[in-house]
Amino acid sequence: MTASKKDLENIIQSLSTDNYGGFGKDFVHTWDKSFGDLKAVLEVASALKALYKENISVKTFQSGLAVSIFRDNSTRTRMAFTSAVNLLGLYNQEIDENKSQVAHGETVRETANMISFLTEAIGIRDDKFLGIGCKYIKDVGEALDDGFKEGVLDTRPTIVNLQDDLDHPTQSMADLLHMIEVAGGYENLKNKKIAMTWAYSPSYGKPLSVPQGIIGLMSRFGMNISLAYPEGYELHGEIVDKAKAFSAESGGSFEISNDMGKAFEGADFVYPKSWAPYSVMEKRTELLLAGQNKALDDLEKECLENNKKFKNWVCDEELMKKTKDGNALYMHCLPADISGVSCVDGEVTKEVFEKYRIPTYKEAKNKPYIIAAMIMLSKFKDVRGLLDFHLKTGLDRAKSIGNKCCCCG
Amino acid sequence: MTASKKDLENIIQSLSTDNYGGFGKDFVHTWDKSFGDLKAVLEVASALKALYKENISVKTFQSGLAVSIFRDNSTRTRMAFTSAVNLLGLYNQEIDENKSQVAHGETVRETANMISFLTEAIGIRDDKFLGIGCKYIKDVGEALDDGFKEGVLDTRPTIVNLQDDLDHPTQSMADLLHMIEVAGGYENLKNKKIAMTWAYSPSYGKPLSVPQGIIGLMSRFGMNISLAYPEGYELHGEIVDKAKAFSAESGGSFEISNDMGKAFEGADFVYPKSWAPYSVMEKRTELLLAGQNKALDDLEKECLENNKKFKNWVCDEELMKKTKDGNALYMHCLPADISGVSCVDGEVTKEVFEKYRIPTYKEAKNKPYIIAAMIMLSKFKDVRGLLDFHLKTGLDRAKSIGNKCCCCG
Amino acid sequence: MTASKKDLENIIQSLSTDNYGGFGKDFVHTWDKSFGDLKAVLEVASALKALYKENISVKTFQSGLAVSIFRDNSTRTRMAFTSAVNLLGLYNQEIDENKSQVAHGETVRETANMISFLTEAIGIRDDKFLGIGCKYIKDVGEALDDGFKEGVLDTRPTIVNLQDDLDHPTQSMADLLHMIEVAGGYENLKNKKIAMTWAYSPSYGKPLSVPQGIIGLMSRFGMNISLAYPEGYELHGEIVDKAKAFSAESGGSFEISNDMGKAFEGADFVYPKSWAPYSVMEKRTELLLAGQNKALDDLEKECLENNKKFKNWVCDEELMKKTKDGNALYMHCLPADISGVSCVDGEVTKEVFEKYRIPTYKEAKNKPYIIAAMIMLSKFKDVRGLLDFHLKTGLDRAKSIGNKCCCCG
Repeated sequence: MTASKKDLENIIQSLSTDNYGGFGKDFVHTWDKSFGDLKAVLEVASALKALYKENISVKTFQSGLAVSIFRDNSTRTRMAFTSAVNLLGLYNQEIDENKSQVAHGETVRETANMISFLTEAIGIRDDKFLGIGCKYIKDVGEALDDGFKEGVLDTRPTIVNLQDDLDHPTQSMADLLHMIEVAGGYENLKNKKIAMTWAYSPSYGKPLSVPQGIIGLMSRFGMNISLAYPEGYELHGEIVDKAKAFSAESGGSFEISNDMGKAFEGADFVYPKSWAPYSVMEKRTELLLAGQNKALDDLEKECLENNKKFKNWVCDEELMKKTKDGNALYMHCLPADISGVSCVDGEVTKEVFEKYRIPTYKEAKNKPYIIAAMIMLSKFKDVRGLLDFHLKTGLDRAKSIGNKCCCCG
Repeated sequence: MTASKKDLENIIQSLSTDNYGGFGKDFVHTWDKSFGDLKAVLEVASALKALYKENISVKTFQSGLAVSIFRDNSTRTRMAFTSAVNLLGLYNQEIDENKSQVAHGETVRETANMISFLTEAIGIRDDKFLGIGCKYIKDVGEALDDGFKEGVLDTRPTIVNLQDDLDHPTQSMADLLHMIEVAGGYENLKNKKIAMTWAYSPSYGKPLSVPQGIIGLMSRFGMNISLAYPEGYELHGEIVDKAKAFSAESGGSFEISNDMGKAFEGADFVYPKSWAPYSVMEKRTELLLAGQNKALDDLEKECLENNKKFKNWVCDEELMKKTKDGNALYMHCLPADISGVSCVDGEVTKEVFEKYRIPTYKEAKNKPYIIAAMIMLSKFKDVRGLLDFHLKTGLDRAKSIGNKCCCCG
Repeated sequence: MTASKKDLENIIQSLSTDNYGGFGKDFVHTWDKSFGDLKAVLEVASALKALYKENISVKTFQSGLAVSIFRDNSTRTRMAFTSAVNLLGLYNQEIDENKSQVAHGETVRETANMISFLTEAIGIRDDKFLGIGCKYIKDVGEALDDGFKEGVLDTRPTIVNLQDDLDHPTQSMADLLHMIEVAGGYENLKNKKIAMTWAYSPSYGKPLSVPQGIIGLMSRFGMNISLAYPEGYELHGEIVDKAKAFSAESGGSFEISNDMGKAFEGADFVYPKSWAPYSVMEKRTELLLAGQNKALDDLEKECLENNKKFKNWVCDEELMKKTKDGNALYMHCLPADISGVSCVDGEVTKEVFEKYRIPTYKEAKNKPYIIAAMIMLSKFKDVRGLLDFHLKTGLDRAKSIGNKCCCCG
């Protein structure tokens, strides 16, 4: 089951990291990255995962901080970021905007520098406001560039987008790695069909970044993408256009419908998930910024009411039967709204979810490695050499003197 | 005062860890552990304490996370857990249920896996609701077993119960180590008398886990246990039965009375501490779950009123005179409610507490080592070999190059 | 730009740490430290900064905790403390008084010991209440002395004052290091003029610790200090007296006026910053302790109203022209209240601030190194020897195998 040292050597020697273009750069949106760079991140993540399984330490920093800024709740991405930076030897300092002075009259420019004097990586989640999360990340990046150029910072911390209003790249890349593992190689995804569909949930205001992340990334790999949602639940037009262009370029296809069944027809992968319509998110952002609580309540009620018209957008066994051999891989970023478990009516039935529960956990497992790979590739020019060094050093992550640790043997 | 290298060698060589039965298992309740396993934890904790004093690093992990979940307030156990895992080389990530999505429709099963991808140990405090804290810990454990078996997790994190509704094993084991140190060996505890008694406090709803933990553990070591509380302040019947059976088995004795003085009579150790009656905790759990705030307020008032009848249940100098040579060791898990210090009337008078203040601190000092020992023994098969390796390597915990560190020399 | 190994060797060999008097002691107020001790901290901070720039690890602890207690908001000092202790190999555990039991009937004496069993350093910010913050720090220190003497603690953690009601030593020392770097040596500060002046801000209750820290420290270095504030905005009389005496002793001068322009006249350094009058802080402390919210609101209103009379106390280009060659170094502890940026009328105009923005960031950059130096000198007797060891070992902080890290090369 586990890789031998020889296997690890092969994995590392075959890493195509030599021409990685993201060295010294942030990881904000997958669509700004070259195909080769995306591939390099996936490969390094795989290698880190294999090294971990073999109990080989990849600790690369003796000291250094990672900073995480969460402007929205998170358990799994928070854990994934902490795990990733710890794996590399960094200490994670969360910035809680309530405890700190970040929100009180400080410019982003200043704060970005203040948190970065001995910092190697910054993870940011800012997905609540359309057009704002992404701008915040870019502003932080520019401030860091400036600080580094001016000699304020000795190293330029790498920013990892942990979900903004447009994309959720650590999620989509973890999803993609899962698909690659299931398909046995990224080449095997070519012309495989993925249904990225809306699904009903009794909640409101769920970000668009996951579906947009999925169509924006899978379209790079020649997949046949079928995007489906009820009328009115459109995604951001620009991202859809990008995905269409990518599909054309990579030899895949791209279609949009208002028919969940059609999307599932013959699909190899299905990703049914709730989101709020782009137009609602725009309106909501406006009202949030204006502090119009009454209008926000009204908007929420209206949306929840509207959602209810589409309770039949649920991933159930009948729908799954329409997929390729009735056996498509069900995917989700978790937590899913499961009918009869976490809500009365949800995105997926209990039966379907239970069948794919363990695979969705494995999907999630990739995220720490994806984040670690993004950081490593941004900070080190020769990651193949670095990992080769770690393999040859062969330092136990958990000491195996006296005996094997319980679970890595 | 401090151990020489030769002493350390002897301590390590004499560890009876070879047949430890808790390898790969969680530490939930002491009563589920064999006598030999309890002894092994105590010995390893002692060894870790001695190695720390001699500035010898026992860092065993190059990277890895520990996760702590506190569903109730804590300073000392929080610090003890962080210290313990840091000593072994792990980074502690606290999960704050308010910040995270744990509470929002996620199943325990899922969360347990999501926080565990690169995690070695999980500390859980969940002591508020009768019958629930313990169940939560067991559910997490089962989810981890499942995740490990299914290949979701590469290692199975060890759970350490940091206090549930039934037991507080890291506390009782730290208490026991303190008693062993004072008595000069666990054999010397045989037929020594310990008074575990209720004491008055102007608060309400204090968990039963400490008194239950004490009677459930000390009864394993042949002690003569005298449990005393005002009528109506019964503990959980099943735990009391367990303790009775353990006492019979280990050659100790077990008595219950409603007389604090009788319990103190000739005692070698006294542990006077407030708790809520089991029946009240049952009622409270019911009301908490039903969200009946008015009824909860009424219950609280009623209980506080009832408590007041027993203000004379206070550990004062007069009572202490009844103990063995008037010189029993006063014990407490801290913080104690001290009359005239932290409250008007409390569990113990200022005079008695002050006399035993430093010993109670030393009692508390054991907790990090107990936790570290529990984790180490669960994760490594040959802990004696591992500690021997650390001793022989002799890596300074605090660098002593150039000069000794200020305090370890 | 960066130092060669030979340069680093020289820096380390010339450290005057041999007679450091603060070994084993806390860093609470600069005025309690000898001139030689202050110089040693500055030198070690410089050395640590140079070593960091050259990617040489100074990790000195294999394990160990640092504890930080913030009784007031903070981003930058929080980050500085975390960075500093991480650089040395310690894990930072924040104590959040809301989450923990610190505030609930525990005596300082007890808590101090409970958080210190495996702890090397404790950072405390407690600046809200006049006469209380400082006392709290000293109480913690005494409790630690006691615990160490009694064998409760194996090492005596070093306390670093991260701002109390009187002083802000990590800030003033970072400021001083910045001035030394700009002036090219501490000798060059002799008889240079620094204007420490009040400035208008639309806020209230800002602590006195920064201006007091500045006059109390810079007066040790033979500087000519010009303190200016509107009538009624006096500082703590005792600190002012200390500063006067220090100035006389060190060959500097000390003057107080109610004229910002006069203070700026010919100044080499200017530090315009808002603070609350000492008498108001006294009143506020009284009301806060008494929980008199209505009276507090009234006091706030009254003060804000009074502040408004002095809106012309702003550092603008006209004022800056009065300084030495119109080119004094503007300083601030950040965040500054910038007119037209963070508020309508503030401490400094946008133009002046923007000109000195990068220098203020560099000023702030020193704080982690100052904190690390304070801890190192308190814990290790031969810091020169320790740093020499780190230099000779030459362990990469960020691994440079395979290739240089992106930013340190």
